Amino acid sequence: MKTSIATVSIGGSLREKLVAISRAGFDGYEIFENDLISSPMSPEDIRSLSDDLGLTIDLYQPFRDFEGVSESQLARNLKRAAAKFDVMKRLGVDTILACSNVGTAIDPSDQLAIDQLGKLSEMAEFFDVKIAYEALAWGKFVSTYDHSWSIVQAVNHASLGLCLDSFHILSRGSSLDKIAEIPGDKIFFVQLADAPLMSLDVLTWSRHYRLFPGEGAWDLPAFVLAAISAGYSGPLSLEIFNDTYRQGAPTLTARDGHRSLKTLEDETIGISSSHSQTSFKNLDPLPLLQVPRGFSFVELQPGEGDQLVKVLSALGFELAGAHRRKAVELWTQGDARIVINNDLTGTQAELVGVGVEVADIDTLTERARSLKARLKPRDIESGEEELVAVEAPNNIDFYFGELTGVNPKWSSEFASLNSKSSQETALTHIDHIALRQPWQRIDESVLFFRSIFGLEIDDGQDIASEFGLVRSRSLVNKDRTIRLALNVTPTGADGRQTFSDHIALSTVDILKTAKLLRSNGLHVLRVPQNYYEDLTSKFEIDKDRLKEMQDFDVLFDSNEDGNFFHFYTQPIGSLFFEIIQRVDGYDGYGASNAFVRLSSQRAIDVKGLVK
Amino acid sequence: MKTSIATVSIGGSLREKLVAISRAGFDGYEIFENDLISSPMSPEDIRSLSDDLGLTIDLYQPFRDFEGVSESQLARNLKRAAAKFDVMKRLGVDTILACSNVGTAIDPSDQLAIDQLGKLSEMAEFFDVKIAYEALAWGKFVSTYDHSWSIVQAVNHASLGLCLDSFHILSRGSSLDKIAEIPGDKIFFVQLADAPLMSLDVLTWSRHYRLFPGEGAWDLPAFVLAAISAGYSGPLSLEIFNDTYRQGAPTLTARDGHRSLKTLEDETIGISSSHSQTSFKNLDPLPLLQVPRGFSFVELQPGEGDQLVKVLSALGFELAGAHRRKAVELWTQGDARIVINNDLTGTQAELVGVGVEVADIDTLTERARSLKARLKPRDIESGEEELVAVEAPNNIDFYFGELTGVNPKWSSEFASLNSKSSQETALTHIDHIALRQPWQRIDESVLFFRSIFGLEIDDGQDIASEFGLVRSRSLVNKDRTIRLALNVTPTGADGRQTFSDHIALSTVDILKTAKLLRSNGLHVLRVPQNYYEDLTSKFEIDKDRLKEMQDFDVLFDSNEDGNFFHFYTQPIGSLFFEIIQRVDGYDGYGASNAFVRLSSQRAIDVKGLVK
Repeated sequence: MKTSIATVSIGGSLREKLVAISRAGFDGYEIFENDLISSPMSPEDIRSLSDDLGLTIDLYQPFRDFEGVSESQLARNLKRAAAKFDVMKRLGVDTILACSNVGTAIDPSDQLAIDQLGKLSEMAEFFDVKIAYEALAWGKFVSTYDHSWSIVQAVNHASLGLCLDSFHILSRGSSLDKIAEIPGDKIFFVQLADAPLMSLDVLTWSRHYRLFPGEGAWDLPAFVLAAISAGYSGPLSLEIFNDTYRQGAPTLTARDGHRSLKTLEDETIGISSSHSQTSFKNLDPLPLLQVPRGFSFVELQPGEGDQLVKVLSALGFELAGAHRRKAVELWTQGDARIVINNDLTGTQAELVGVGVEVADIDTLTERARSLKARLKPRDIESGEEELVAVEAPNNIDFYFGELTGVNPKWSSEFASLNSKSSQETALTHIDHIALRQPWQRIDESVLFFRSIFGLEIDDGQDIASEFGLVRSRSLVNKDRTIRLALNVTPTGADGRQTFSDHIALSTVDILKTAKLLRSNGLHVLRVPQNYYEDLTSKFEIDKDRLKEMQDFDVLFDSNEDGNFFHFYTQPIGSLFFEIIQRVDGYDGYGASNAFVRLSSQRAIDVKGLVK
Repeated sequence: MKTSIATVSIGGSLREKLVAISRAGFDGYEIFENDLISSPMSPEDIRSLSDDLGLTIDLYQPFRDFEGVSESQLARNLKRAAAKFDVMKRLGVDTILACSNVGTAIDPSDQLAIDQLGKLSEMAEFFDVKIAYEALAWGKFVSTYDHSWSIVQAVNHASLGLCLDSFHILSRGSSLDKIAEIPGDKIFFVQLADAPLMSLDVLTWSRHYRLFPGEGAWDLPAFVLAAISAGYSGPLSLEIFNDTYRQGAPTLTARDGHRSLKTLEDETIGISSSHSQTSFKNLDPLPLLQVPRGFSFVELQPGEGDQLVKVLSALGFELAGAHRRKAVELWTQGDARIVINNDLTGTQAELVGVGVEVADIDTLTERARSLKARLKPRDIESGEEELVAVEAPNNIDFYFGELTGVNPKWSSEFASLNSKSSQETALTHIDHIALRQPWQRIDESVLFFRSIFGLEIDDGQDIASEFGLVRSRSLVNKDRTIRLALNVTPTGADGRQTFSDHIALSTVDILKTAKLLRSNGLHVLRVPQNYYEDLTSKFEIDKDRLKEMQDFDVLFDSNEDGNFFHFYTQPIGSLFFEIIQRVDGYDGYGASNAFVRLSSQRAIDVKGLVK
């Protein structure tokens, strides 16, 4: 379907917005009145620029507080409408959004609104423009879409139809069922917004916290399906009031908006497959989703010195091979693979890439390209495996390769130095990877991992720590072989960003592993005595076991699904490792212990690295 | 009264928090369990550090979900309580906060809770500790203070009393009247928090948005008065869950907390003067409030070149005199005085100080000192006026001098160069000063101006601009001769802080003044044509007048109080001037035009200064 976005959704001047909207691939846009008023471009200039950029202007918005008012107010409102209709002709836009009255309406019955919207419709016909009437969730008398529809029916004028905005409908928890009863040609416009679930007044929620589809909590494919089933064939348009987007770079915000709409169309096709209506022909499918089946490897920048190699050795990793032509080493243990890229010469150890295994590289590449992800094909030579990467938000490369049996194809590029393990394998595989995120980019990241890789939002946690509030969101595949924890990191009082990424590795016997790794010389993050005293007041833990946990700084969590044990290494550069054991069906990340971990890490950060 | 603060209210490690709390002047603190658990200090170490810092531990908190549970759960809860009572003995704290059950309670009648709190009280008596039972606003069965009081009455045990938290009581809109019926010795603890008015679920509101008393919207003096009238004589303690404070510097947050409590005590005395109860003897008064009567001057750093002087000349200011011994010039026009401090050699023009007139310098100095404001006494010589300054948040010095007749005393220090004006006076006085604020410091600023100067919060506006959302709050004195607009400024996508402070100067005839100043060579901020076209659709404005407004880039606002005209200079350094005319009772700042002004300023910022 045609894609569109309201200029209010992104930051910058009107000119910057239009350039960004065009580059992102939108077909058109809604012009927000304040963007017009504050622009030095005349309406004719804006029309001409839009033509040059290949954009149509799909909607002029908003026109407020028109209907159901006193006679004297009506005269002023009609005068205002005439002025706006005139501007619309100069812009070349044929539809105006009229919001239900939130302030000046005086008649709780609908009759006055019906009469006055009738007058407005006649004037609109004269100017050859259309009115899309929208029920705002906080409208004084009209606040639901079925109410606005009954008014539009009563007016019964060709120039008057409806605007359906997912925010106003879903924020009130309205049923979508009645949308199908509206003739498609009376739905003049569809606006889309997602949102986090909040128990906040709808006005504040609407004006500050809207999100692009797929970043929030609502079932928007069901909403789009309802509109299309009714016969709507106009643009799908984003109207997103979000304080963070307003501050962001226009080009990135516009790209995300377009990505969210293309994903939404694709998801709508997914749920509409049981329907056989021809109207779905307007929906564009994306190349088929290739959900990653597991982690293949992580790629690290080693940083100066040999600390990383020492830590990997102490963790029980062994050098499995060196790449035939690059300064790259492969370290393995069980199914966990760590690639050290010695071509990267940054001063500190850092997570730079994550490899995942998918069924079909080419299809995923096409999907990523359709969604305007930044592709980074690998420089390969004959005989080497194709391994494509996309750049995820916050500059981590996500490689995807095809799985073939036990070892990934690309591992054959490494000359085998040490094919059989000389010691017992303590760690079995990568359980999850935690990526730090600046607060400006968390929504973008969620959309990226959902739309490109089909990961699902699993869980969210807010952790009050010594650093400030850490907001965490988890993304997973269905069988939990991919788990990403995205941690929104506050800036400290000194403005420094002190958070780390981390890699969590699984074991089947945490205490045995803890002993082994310590005997290997691993330095772990110390856990305060007070933590264990508190633990005994909460859980029944065998005294000897507790003593051992304390000796080896092992943390514990438990819920109705099972138990969770974990400990951490000291930080290395902007990175640390976590060793975990899941018992029974425990599905979380030990979030209730996060404040202890953060506090101990902060103590190191303040005092310098404890050796 | 004794002052106290919960460790959860500020950021940093427990040791950092305690040092900050002690330095700020608190008598004691509430220890938040997570701060204990994550600390490497043992309970004995913490007790000893508290002794060294002169702090008592007034409360251990929180103990959750104890009462009204199943038998098996009760056994676990009692075990947990015993462990906590033991820790309390080691810490040397005699009272624990027990929150009403939010999860595990099974009995909607009170009987089970009464029985089980009775058992807990007996155990507490054995350990010689006290239980302060608090109704959380989102408690499962117990969520109001009168309900918690009826349960405490029914248990009727010396070890069980109440904790009254202003958040839980005021967020539910409960009447304070029943507090007086509670015997003072059964109020074991009082926790204080302010909050902005929000329609948000109480749990989220409570956990993220609490504020120090005086920073929010609640009448906390009335709350304290109610507790004291009941006979409460324990600590006034701050329990503030606030995400911004958590990220802030512990010392600044603790200082603000202490300042808020001292101001609250003083305000409580103010409203209690009609009462004659002896229990108020515990309240400490502050030196009497000296609300400023008007702006005396602004002090500017000139920046490189002569642009500032050129702009001041074009605005109609004249050099009134040079300081006898400093490189300081006084420029005047009507009652507006601008001091250019040539001793400041920063590269760009900047607002560095504001002078206000008060009745009694010495009393205000004492008040500022009591509230731990940073005083900056002026380096004076014999015969020069004493002029004390306090440093306001964001590094602006606020000078206060005594008013004597028409000219301030200090102006006699300037050798008169030009005593009579050679031209008509266009501008009459300083109407308001707008100070930019980083988002981390707005609450601190509001508290500063309220507590030191007695200014009142007048108005708040959120302005969606091309830069992002600008949150604005206005502080005024009663007769509006002091108006400060505090603007919370977003950071741009490029991380740059592009906002300016500004000084608004009054005229009685905006168009005449605009013509005069333009003939003086003043460059004003251009306003787009589209703005005036929109204006005609909203207001009835005479065509010739509109044409003149447009020619001179004058903006317009109107409401039921009156009309408002204003225009802006081009920015000079981090500063610009606004010229305004208020007609009739218009009391605002033209906020509805702010997006236009911000857009035009951003265009200059992007393109470079338009000459």
